Amino acid sequence: MTTDVFVIAQAEAIRAGDRRALARAITLIESTRPDHRAKAELLMTELLPYAGNSIRVGISGVPGVGKSTFIETFGLEIIGNNHKVAVLAVDPSSPKTGGSILGDKTRMEELSKNRSAFIRPSPSSGTLGGVARRTREAMLITEAAGFDVVIVETVGVGQSETAVAELVDMFILLIVPGGGDELQGIKKGIVELADLIVVNKADGDLFAAAERAKRDYGAALHLLRAANKDWAPRVTTCSSLQKSGIGEIWQIVELFHNAVQTSGRFSKRRQKQAKAWMWDEVNETVASALRSDQNIADILPTLENQVQNGQIAPARAARKILMEFGVLKDIET
Amino acid sequence: MTTDVFVIAQAEAIRAGDRRALARAITLIESTRPDHRAKAELLMTELLPYAGNSIRVGISGVPGVGKSTFIETFGLEIIGNNHKVAVLAVDPSSPKTGGSILGDKTRMEELSKNRSAFIRPSPSSGTLGGVARRTREAMLITEAAGFDVVIVETVGVGQSETAVAELVDMFILLIVPGGGDELQGIKKGIVELADLIVVNKADGDLFAAAERAKRDYGAALHLLRAANKDWAPRVTTCSSLQKSGIGEIWQIVELFHNAVQTSGRFSKRRQKQAKAWMWDEVNETVASALRSDQNIADILPTLENQVQNGQIAPARAARKILMEFGVLKDIET
Repeated sequence: MTTDVFVIAQAEAIRAGDRRALARAITLIESTRPDHRAKAELLMTELLPYAGNSIRVGISGVPGVGKSTFIETFGLEIIGNNHKVAVLAVDPSSPKTGGSILGDKTRMEELSKNRSAFIRPSPSSGTLGGVARRTREAMLITEAAGFDVVIVETVGVGQSETAVAELVDMFILLIVPGGGDELQGIKKGIVELADLIVVNKADGDLFAAAERAKRDYGAALHLLRAANKDWAPRVTTCSSLQKSGIGEIWQIVELFHNAVQTSGRFSKRRQKQAKAWMWDEVNETVASALRSDQNIADILPTLENQVQNGQIAPARAARKILMEFGVLKDIET
Repeated sequence: MTTDVFVIAQAEAIRAGDRRALARAITLIESTRPDHRAKAELLMTELLPYAGNSIRVGISGVPGVGKSTFIETFGLEIIGNNHKVAVLAVDPSSPKTGGSILGDKTRMEELSKNRSAFIRPSPSSGTLGGVARRTREAMLITEAAGFDVVIVETVGVGQSETAVAELVDMFILLIVPGGGDELQGIKKGIVELADLIVVNKADGDLFAAAERAKRDYGAALHLLRAANKDWAPRVTTCSSLQKSGIGEIWQIVELFHNAVQTSGRFSKRRQKQAKAWMWDEVNETVASALRSDQNIADILPTLENQVQNGQIAPARAARKILMEFGVLKDIET
């Protein structure tokens, strides 16, 4: 691998706090063009030694939970504690509206104007693997640029929460009071991914309902929580509008951070994530090679149809695909 | 693909109810030898038209929950309702003790002697993908052999429950009364995978605790359940020893089966599973090719170490692996 003077210059600009260089770098890693991927890889190699010094916080919640208002308020609270915060979005759920969440920066008007904040809308959607890859690299780039708190926002639909929870150090689930119907939006397992559940909109008419939701989820977490000795998932309430409970949330994040660093889970988790990331890269690269193979594209619709209708054994269909890909030969008997 | 008279004969023997042929077929699909895989694929193609006519029930529970005693009792109840039941085991969690669960058939003495039952211990462990593949094929083979209820047992550790839940039509989680510590064994998301939670050991001293667990989980499910209009997850109690509540569980399984067939979710799910299965086959085949590549094996320990310690970017490490695999070239700049 030959080094690239332009890449080195770009890496230095990013580390020096050049926001345009930072934005360009993230645009680069969002590209799937092979030459861009190659450049991105060189850039990541340059920045890697300066990345990682942050707490990575995933925040998920169904539409209507007030995510952007919360992140605006929470982000400003974090900055008030002398940190620099980067906000990234993961939204693989809607190929059409890819980039929808955070796309409208005016949703976070004050935060987006703050020099200690960097907000990046969701890239146009791809596979979850592709989106996860871009998010991971964006985390490293913003860390190398000096942002020591990285918030990864994801909309509470699809499989994105699980993917995001695996990318970050701490996962926060944002919910609204009221229970019943509103909560139906929360899907399998998401609650148990949460290190912290925040009941938003704990104000006005919803205040009592928010306290009730806090109690209910506290009980559910107690019953269902995973057995981590260093941290028991918590539930807290806040009002993004009245800016109440926000400081407490940042304190909880710091408590969590200290707890998992002391127990060693923080670094163990980061190491595990890096290894998983490498294999995801391998799988994603192979998968995209399969997807972009024209011979496979030609036979796929028929094959998938036959498999769904039980006309061909899945293993046989898989062999046909890999034969087209040149990985397998046909069966000789 | 040339047909194979021996394979055709074996397929006919299986459909005719020849148990030795059935056992041999499952041994065949458990083999990873390329020539065996090829034969297995031909056999699956022969049997496919006669498979699928069953309800596939996944049963999970942590060690000590009394899974085997429950399945023995439940299996005999199913047979009593004029069905033929096959019991398969998935245990990828312990490479060492692979085949541990169900390995000792005497754990299900009566059921294993019954002509209407077929019990298959867990194959020696492999990757979860490999185990899932073998289980899927074993399901189809036993169905073609006329078993119209297929129970897939998995031990409540590792990721196997999620994998099993995706293989079957209905997922039953077996728990023990008492809450607190015992429940810590239940991991993230598993409870929400369940279409039915069975509180076992509802007898003697534990009877009251079982009723309490039923209430607690009923509340938790109500709060956290996924929004399927055709079925709301249930909680029930039983005693495998006293054989109480077992008939009710089979009735619930039949209710579930009717509900999802009427709503169309049953067939939609089967179609989705078949498609996912094909892609899993593709990924698993590529993955095993990667794993068995000696060049990769040579560089892997160093690469993984460097990735974990942040000395090389995961994307760069992935490229090195795929270069060894011949899928990628090095970066030219």
